[in-house]
Formats: sequence, C-alpha cells, structure tokens
Amino acid sequence: MGLHYNLVAGKNLDRLAALSDGVFGVALTLLVLDLRIPVAESIHGEADLWHALLTLAPRLIPYVMTFMTVGIFWVGQQTQLNLFARGDRTLTWINIGFLLVVTLMPFSTALLAQYLTFRVALAVYWLNIFLLGAALYAAFKYARAAGLIKTDVPAQLCTAVERRIIVAQSLYAVGAVLCLINTFVSIAFIVLVQLNYVVAPRIGWLYRL
Amino acid sequence: MGLHYNLVAGKNLDRLAALSDGVFGVALTLLVLDLRIPVAESIHGEADLWHALLTLAPRLIPYVMTFMTVGIFWVGQQTQLNLFARGDRTLTWINIGFLLVVTLMPFSTALLAQYLTFRVALAVYWLNIFLLGAALYAAFKYARAAGLIKTDVPAQLCTAVERRIIVAQSLYAVGAVLCLINTFVSIAFIVLVQLNYVVAPRIGWLYRL
Amino acid sequence: MGLHYNLVAGKNLDRLAALSDGVFGVALTLLVLDLRIPVAESIHGEADLWHALLTLAPRLIPYVMTFMTVGIFWVGQQTQLNLFARGDRTLTWINIGFLLVVTLMPFSTALLAQYLTFRVALAVYWLNIFLLGAALYAAFKYARAAGLIKTDVPAQLCTAVERRIIVAQSLYAVGAVLCLINTFVSIAFIVLVQLNYVVAPRIGWLYRL
Amino acid sequence: MGLHYNLVAGKNLDRLAALSDGVFGVALTLLVLDLRIPVAESIHGEADLWHALLTLAPRLIPYVMTFMTVGIFWVGQQTQLNLFARGDRTLTWINIGFLLVVTLMPFSTALLAQYLTFRVALAVYWLNIFLLGAALYAAFKYARAAGLIKTDVPAQLCTAVERRIIVAQSLYAVGAVLCLINTFVSIAFIVLVQLNYVVAPRIGWLYRL
Repeated sequence: MGLHYNLVAGKNLDRLAALSDGVFGVALTLLVLDLRIPVAESIHGEADLWHALLTLAPRLIPYVMTFMTVGIFWVGQQTQLNLFARGDRTLTWINIGFLLVVTLMPFSTALLAQYLTFRVALAVYWLNIFLLGAALYAAFKYARAAGLIKTDVPAQLCTAVERRIIVAQSLYAVGAVLCLINTFVSIAFIVLVQLNYVVAPRIGWLYRL
Repeated sequence: MGLHYNLVAGKNLDRLAALSDGVFGVALTLLVLDLRIPVAESIHGEADLWHALLTLAPRLIPYVMTFMTVGIFWVGQQTQLNLFARGDRTLTWINIGFLLVVTLMPFSTALLAQYLTFRVALAVYWLNIFLLGAALYAAFKYARAAGLIKTDVPAQLCTAVERRIIVAQSLYAVGAVLCLINTFVSIAFIVLVQLNYVVAPRIGWLYRL
Repeated sequence: MGLHYNLVAGKNLDRLAALSDGVFGVALTLLVLDLRIPVAESIHGEADLWHALLTLAPRLIPYVMTFMTVGIFWVGQQTQLNLFARGDRTLTWINIGFLLVVTLMPFSTALLAQYLTFRVALAVYWLNIFLLGAALYAAFKYARAAGLIKTDVPAQLCTAVERRIIVAQSLYAVGAVLCLINTFVSIAFIVLVQLNYVVAPRIGWLYRL
Repeated sequence: MGLHYNLVAGKNLDRLAALSDGVFGVALTLLVLDLRIPVAESIHGEADLWHALLTLAPRLIPYVMTFMTVGIFWVGQQTQLNLFARGDRTLTWINIGFLLVVTLMPFSTALLAQYLTFRVALAVYWLNIFLLGAALYAAFKYARAAGLIKTDVPAQLCTAVERRIIVAQSLYAVGAVLCLINTFVSIAFIVLVQLNYVVAPRIGWLYRL
C-alpha cells in the first residue's frame, strides 16, 4: 500500500504556531512603517513640528484599527490551535492561506489610510477581514470533520467557536454596507465591533456575541 | 584526544526550527511590500482608484505563487526536521544555506513580477526553486548518512521523502523549459504543480507524485 | 449556562511570549533601517567616507538609547510572564496594547534622531516610554487582581515589580521635564537612568531603585 | 533584606533564544532588501535584463559573506546557550548588546557592498565582526564566573569555546590588516576563514582552529 509523504507532512502544530507568530509579529511591526516622520525641510520650529504631528494623527486611526483586527484574529487562531490535538497537511495549508491574508493587511490598511473617504478602499479593507474570518472558519470546520480536535473539548464549545466567527463576520458586513451612507460611519461601526471583541464587556447580550 | 568545538556546535533542532520560522515569517511578509498602494496624485475619484487596483491585480499572481512555493518548502523542511532525532553542525549549515535561498525568493519574485514576459526572469525564479529543492535534498541525504534520523522511521518513508523532492524538481524543470514557448505557459504549469502539492488531491497518480 | 468563547480564548502564555519576541525582534532590527549608508555621489575618496561616517555617528545615540529602552521593557515583560501561572484574554489584550506601543518606538526614535533639539520630539519619545510603562503596570495589576500569578510568588516580590515600574517612570518623567532646560540634558538624564537599569550597579540606593 | 527585582529578572533562557532567533531571522532577511531589481526604464529586452543581472552579481558577494558571518555567530550563541543551566539579568544584557551588534550587520554589509574598494568600509565591517566576537566572549566569561554553566560540562569544553573565539578573532584581525595591501585580499581572506568555520574540514590543524 505504501507510505505516502502526505501522511507525515505538516503534523507539527508548534511549528505552525511559531510561523504564525513570526508572520503576525512582522505584519504588526510593518504597519508603523507607514507612519513617516515629518520632512525636515518644512519644519522651522517647535510649532511647525507640533502642527506636522497633529496632521499625522488621523493616520493613527486605521493603524490602531488594524492592530485590533490583527490582534483579534491572532487570538482567534491561537484559541483554535489550543483546541486541536494534532495537525495535518490540509490544516497546515488552510493556515498558510490564513497567513497569506494576514500579510495583506498592511496593504489594505495603507490603502484605507490614504483614501479614507473612498468606498473602494473600505471595500478592500472589509474583503481582507472577510477572508481572515473565512480562513479561520474553514480551518475549524475542517479540523472538526477530520477529527483533529482534542477529545475532551465539548461539542458545545466547538459550536461556540464557529458561531463566534459567523456573528463577527455578520457585524463586519453590516459595517461595510454602512459605507453606503459614508465611510466614516462604516469605520466607526467596525471600530465599535472590534472594541467589543477586545474589551469583551460583561454585559449580557454583548458578551454573548 | 581532546574535545572539539565542532562536536558540540549546532545540535539544537529547536533553535534551527525557530530561526527558520523567523526567516520564513519575515520573507513571507516582505513579499507584500512589493505591492504599493496607488499614488494619490493620479486618483480623483472612486473610479480612478478602482481602475488603479485592477491594474495592480496581476502583480498578485507571482505574489501568491511565491507564497505557495515558500509554503511548500516550509512544510518540506518541517516534515524533515520532525523525522530527525538530533542535529549536528553540518546539518545546521546545510539548513542555513537553505535559509539563504529562502531570503532570495522576495528578490526573484519581484523580478518576475516586474518582467513577467522575460525568460531571464523566469530562469532566475526557477533557479531559486531549484536551489531550495537541492538544499532540502542535500540536508536529508546527509541526515540519513550521518544517522540523524529517528530509529523508528521506516526506510520506505525516507525513500518517499527523497523521491518527492526529485519528482517535484523534475516537474519544475519541465515548467522552466516550457518558457521556450512563452513565460505564461511556464508560469501556468508551475502554478498547477504547486496547486497539486498544496491541495494534494486524492486522485491516484497525482497523489503519488 | 453555556460555554462562552471568552472563557477559552487567549490562555496560551507561550504564544503570547512568542508573538512578543517576534514583535520585539522586528522592532529592534527595524531601528537600524534608519541608518542609511552615505550616498555614493558625494564620496570621492577614503577621507570623504570617513567624514560621512563621522557625521552619521550622532544618529547612533538615539538608536542605542532606544535599543536599551526596548531591551529594558522586554526584560520587564519577560519577568512578569515568568511570574504568571496562566493567562486570560484580558491579560492577552493588555499585552497586545503593550506591543502596539512597542511598534511605535521606531517612529519616536526616528523623530527624535531627526529633531534632536526639539522639545516636541522629546515629549513624543517620553510619551512612548510612559505608555510602555503604563501597559506593563496595568498588566501586572490586572494579573494580581485576577489571580493569574503563581501561588509560590511572595507578595513582597509582586510589590517590588510594581514599585520598580513606578520609580522608573518617575525618573523618566524627571528626565522629560528637564527638557525645559534643553533636550540634551533630558537625553543625558534618560540615558543615565537606562544605564542604571541595564548595568544594575550593586551600589546601595541605586540597586534598590 | 528584601527581595530585589534584579534577582528575578532575565532568568528565562528560552525567551532569550526566541528573541535572538527573531532578531537573527529579520537581520538575515533584511540583507536581501539591499538587492534591488533592475529599473524598468533601462531594460528593453532579454539581453538588457541579463546584462543588468550580471552587473548586480558582485553585490551577492558581501551578501553571502554576511550570511555566513551571521550564521557563524548564530551557531556560536546557540552553542553557548546550550551549555548554560540558567540565565540571569547580566547575561541577558550582554546578549542584548550582542543582538544590537547583530542588527548593525545589514548596515556594515550595505556599506561594504557600496564601497568595496574603501579601507574605511572594510574597517567598519571588521569592527562589527570584532564586536560580535567580543560580546560572545564576554557572555561566556561572565557565565563561567557566575556559575551559570551546566555542571556536567567539562572545563576542557569551556576552554575550547573560549579558544575558538580568540583564534577566530585573530584570523579576522589578520584579514582586516591585509587591507593594507588592498580590500580584495582582505575580503578573500575573511571569506576563506568563514568557509573554514562553515565547512569545518576534517583536516588536522584546520579542524582544530
């Protein structure tokens, strides 16, 4: 019958976690490269520099927003991996696809920071978040189907993980649609959704989202 | 007889894996730096931005292709390391050479993205893939000869690992030669080979490649 | 009653440490990107290059200063994590906030290097250090309140950790206020504070800081 | 008497290794950023691109040389850490200093690649290698004095580790002095020294270096 390469490849969850932490670490740090210090020629005194920094401040918004997004998905992936007893090559490849989408976040963020009022920029940003969610969802569905989940994890918890992704993505989609009003309403809504996931307020229905 | 430094150096497979994950993580994330957001001066409305992004889209092809390549070789290296009981300094150095070739991938990819129709660019890209395969093959051959492989790994599996690299490299070479027709045929063939290794369809002869 | 996602998310301290090491590693290495080699056009001989490098040398000061700062906070975070028995999602998010502030250090450093005599630049640099300390302090206070600290850690040690942050931040604040004289006095004072934390001289009152 | 913060800080060798692997991984990958693909305007056909790549090829020499240097010192640090039973904050800080010098390698390499015939550039490159060796030597000397070395490590091996650094640095110093003839003789000599440490030929006196 033969020993197929595919049966032994990609089983190491620790290495997958380490590669992920590397990619996330670099992506998070690259975001800041987009923040350029004011050019020396235009700065003749303290007031000029102060003014230049104030002008730069709005660029911090998409930057912090992306930091939250990437953080949310890092926590999400970590939570999944903790529930898995082992990996296989399909799970590894779904996760490499997930990392591909993670590395696109600095691009989407720079695009949104530059074109804050453009619906196209917001749509690209939303698409990026959607693909992050889709990859995590696919990874978890696959892991359940392939029996990779630890045997002591209750089915209820698995359902909670999946529901979480679907609810979050529905909220992000609502946020994206709000750009029909204008992009600032969209961004405000998305930031609120993210703050909810970051802070996780212990308020009944919010906590259960 | 004396205790030689060389006998104690480079034995730590965990650190080799961690360095590799660092290099792979950075290399994967750097790829996207090549994707630049459209310059503000030329964008006067949503339609302009939409058009600019569509123009950018073809650059995603070599980017995704390289992400797959790097992913394939990351899985390949991980699979090897999992089979090793321990390392030594020769194995470490072959792997550092492997990482050197990994860090060249962003260059080869940018070159191919910029000169998509040039056979020279495709040849450089293929050479990079070839060197990745050659380094992994050398690492495994050496590990077998030096008795670094875990004792419970069947010889059949070792043969499968080596055969895998030779078959893959033969296919990549065929892809490279196809640039005699034109570079798009080459790229399409290479992408198909990579998709096969990523998806690993359970179709008889494909699965056994 | 239901299994909430929030109860299982973000428990993995090892992954938090790995993400942190990734972010710190990239941030430390990015600092040097600010050091540009002299442009070829202006260099006609050994003397020109020697002169150009001497001109570049002062830029090394904020660079080394930031390396010390980032190193101090890396040691600080590591020391905390070693005292924790486990994590939870709030602790994880405070630490992600901490990493956000870490990634801003290359920006603050470049700003200070470019505008060494500007109080605004020094204030931004100090604010960045202050936020680093505030995040670490919040993380530790939270961990104590939430019972995440290992049971064998004496309360005295916890108090020492908190006191350490407060004393250090008070000294940095004094350093910042000294910019009312001029920024070089500030920088000299801050470097002395940092050297004290790096070298940790076993001199009575200094050691106890 | 009190529990001093300094007694519990910086004890985690695993985190030190992880930070190091992060810094090394980024530094190794950044080297390649110096290799720029040929500018499109000047390329009108396959022959132009081929020619442009040939012109670029000499830049690969300092790049590969630095990859070897960084690899040698990564193996050196790893070998040391494997011999240590535990760390302390002084050892941690010597290693952070070591990492500072590692992050300067991309700068020194770019400088040498740009000014291949300048003795000043070679002197800077050599100084960087010297500081790497000095930091590793200091770390090991300190670890021995502070009793951080595993008890089953024979004194003979410790002496071998120290001798190794001194012999290597002497050879690098000879290489640097050879720039009095010209820089190419220096570079050739340094590359030969590095190849000896990479390949570790089992030839009597070379092997014992």
